[in-house]
Amino acid sequence: MSAIRYAAGLLDEVRRRRPRVHCLMNGVVPKFVADGLSALGAIPSMTSSPEEVGNFVAKADSLLVNLGTLDAQRREAIGIAVNVATERGRPWALDPAHCDYSPPRAAFAQELLARGPAVLRANAAEFDLLSVPAGVVAVRTGKADCIAQNGASFSVINGHPLTALVTGTGCLSGAVIAAFLAIEADPYLAACAAMLAFGVAAEMAGKVAAGPGSFEPALLDALANLEGAHIPTFAKADHEQG
Amino acid sequence: MSAIRYAAGLLDEVRRRRPRVHCLMNGVVPKFVADGLSALGAIPSMTSSPEEVGNFVAKADSLLVNLGTLDAQRREAIGIAVNVATERGRPWALDPAHCDYSPPRAAFAQELLARGPAVLRANAAEFDLLSVPAGVVAVRTGKADCIAQNGASFSVINGHPLTALVTGTGCLSGAVIAAFLAIEADPYLAACAAMLAFGVAAEMAGKVAAGPGSFEPALLDALANLEGAHIPTFAKADHEQG
Amino acid sequence: MSAIRYAAGLLDEVRRRRPRVHCLMNGVVPKFVADGLSALGAIPSMTSSPEEVGNFVAKADSLLVNLGTLDAQRREAIGIAVNVATERGRPWALDPAHCDYSPPRAAFAQELLARGPAVLRANAAEFDLLSVPAGVVAVRTGKADCIAQNGASFSVINGHPLTALVTGTGCLSGAVIAAFLAIEADPYLAACAAMLAFGVAAEMAGKVAAGPGSFEPALLDALANLEGAHIPTFAKADHEQG
Repeated sequence: MSAIRYAAGLLDEVRRRRPRVHCLMNGVVPKFVADGLSALGAIPSMTSSPEEVGNFVAKADSLLVNLGTLDAQRREAIGIAVNVATERGRPWALDPAHCDYSPPRAAFAQELLARGPAVLRANAAEFDLLSVPAGVVAVRTGKADCIAQNGASFSVINGHPLTALVTGTGCLSGAVIAAFLAIEADPYLAACAAMLAFGVAAEMAGKVAAGPGSFEPALLDALANLEGAHIPTFAKADHEQG
Repeated sequence: MSAIRYAAGLLDEVRRRRPRVHCLMNGVVPKFVADGLSALGAIPSMTSSPEEVGNFVAKADSLLVNLGTLDAQRREAIGIAVNVATERGRPWALDPAHCDYSPPRAAFAQELLARGPAVLRANAAEFDLLSVPAGVVAVRTGKADCIAQNGASFSVINGHPLTALVTGTGCLSGAVIAAFLAIEADPYLAACAAMLAFGVAAEMAGKVAAGPGSFEPALLDALANLEGAHIPTFAKADHEQG
Repeated sequence: MSAIRYAAGLLDEVRRRRPRVHCLMNGVVPKFVADGLSALGAIPSMTSSPEEVGNFVAKADSLLVNLGTLDAQRREAIGIAVNVATERGRPWALDPAHCDYSPPRAAFAQELLARGPAVLRANAAEFDLLSVPAGVVAVRTGKADCIAQNGASFSVINGHPLTALVTGTGCLSGAVIAAFLAIEADPYLAACAAMLAFGVAAEMAGKVAAGPGSFEPALLDALANLEGAHIPTFAKADHEQG
């Protein structure tokens, strides 16, 4: 249970420290992800212009690299962003979105894994294609969200089925992980806290939504209204091993 | 009335078969269109990177080509996508969005019409600029939505005025057409079913919305909650000729 | 009080004349800004393709240039758009979004200021980096929104704290300014009216929202439902000097 109680404190810490999170991502869901980070209490920035991304990452406390909508300019921007984050010791999370659709995207994801992200977030189909280096925290999202590192694992079974019908909820969960990485040095505990906060918020949203359309604003409201103390009350976590 | 009863079965079929629909579109509304397809029961993908689009279209059951925000890279991606769809016998719909604003866009739309889309969806101003080849199903959306092919025509007068105040509802109707094309070989019947489903959902959404802001999530909720059996109950169709 | 009573008439005039507003902006919030303009009664267009932007600006009544997500293609499109607007005598507003994060963006913003926008909208951190030429109306948004030109100033203290948690509300306020510029020749009065309408709508939205997620559709609903007569009733304006 310690990861759950610890998560409560980390959520309050995100609210107090308001970390800056830079996100490199597709052109489909950037507003939703930025709004989700703001709701959580973080400060998002989203530019992917190669000539500017270095300045933005230099001001950020953590980085999310999401491979959605990959082209030459996006690859260049990702390379610069990871260089700046690495030089400054800022943690970053990798989301190889849809790499199961596109072999060049899977190959690029594997290259990036060798550059030392703190966390890899992916779904089962994406994990099947990737070889995760030792030490990287692996977060496999789905009906349950499983966090694993070096033999330890933690599963969160909060959440709601409508999550799967809203494009960008997976991307947002990656951004939430990046926000917790910014304020917690242990990436395993950061990822557990992130998935607990996201899962509890999704479950709360599902209770008031009439469908996927109203689920989206309800999820943002729930992220904004979530307090650390709610996490031990509502968490449904499973299979904790050490 | 047969098109209406047939539409009810097609909607249930979309839900059962969950077709993959790839959408090439502007950078303004991709999340809304993806969320609308998910609400309907389809599986959207949205990348427009030339190096990846072929892989995505190869996995898709149908394709939407929307000309919003056209540049050199988008033109290249569209060319690749139409080639892959044609080679694999996948149906595609064309939406020449805003071609009345931009002569190069109208010229490109005319070129694409010669490549054999199953359906052209456009508004009246856009239709005025284009010459529709015989056999292509023409869907003219507006206060009424008119589906026409080879002398037959069908009009849907469901829908709601708030639809016009939400950017991307026209684009989404094109994507809904593509979803029905994926599961029905006759593009005329597919387009009639798509416009009936979209129009009935919009009318339902209008009953609960307080303005254009709340209309958008209400439309997604209505698409998700719509059942085939609702279509014969609520359809307002007109001018059916054969 | 004259600016407030005048604003009421201008809002009704936007509704009556339905000006076309072209927006050059980042890839994060274009749908939200387009929906906000539609809710207000304007007709938005959003393309940033260099080969098309001239045709779109030529059809527009005013222009918003927002520097979010700046790259080489966006710079080229902005240059073309400002040229066309200047040639045709169309007013334009400049929003140097996030120029405090990126020195090249601040330098480009300063270049654009020399080209004669009617209005500069920015937050305090962005204003600190820029030198505003005489005659340009300066709109500094924040807890209060301050409009200043040649020694006159006007402050609006409507609005709601949730505005800060929704990405793109600042961009939308710039677009609302552009809509009022399209129907009012005095940019100072246009900017006062825009910030009054936006502030009153935000305050109304805050009364029905349960968090930042539901605030967004509520803001669009409030913009759509706002009538000129509401402005004198609800306006909280301060520090009017002449």
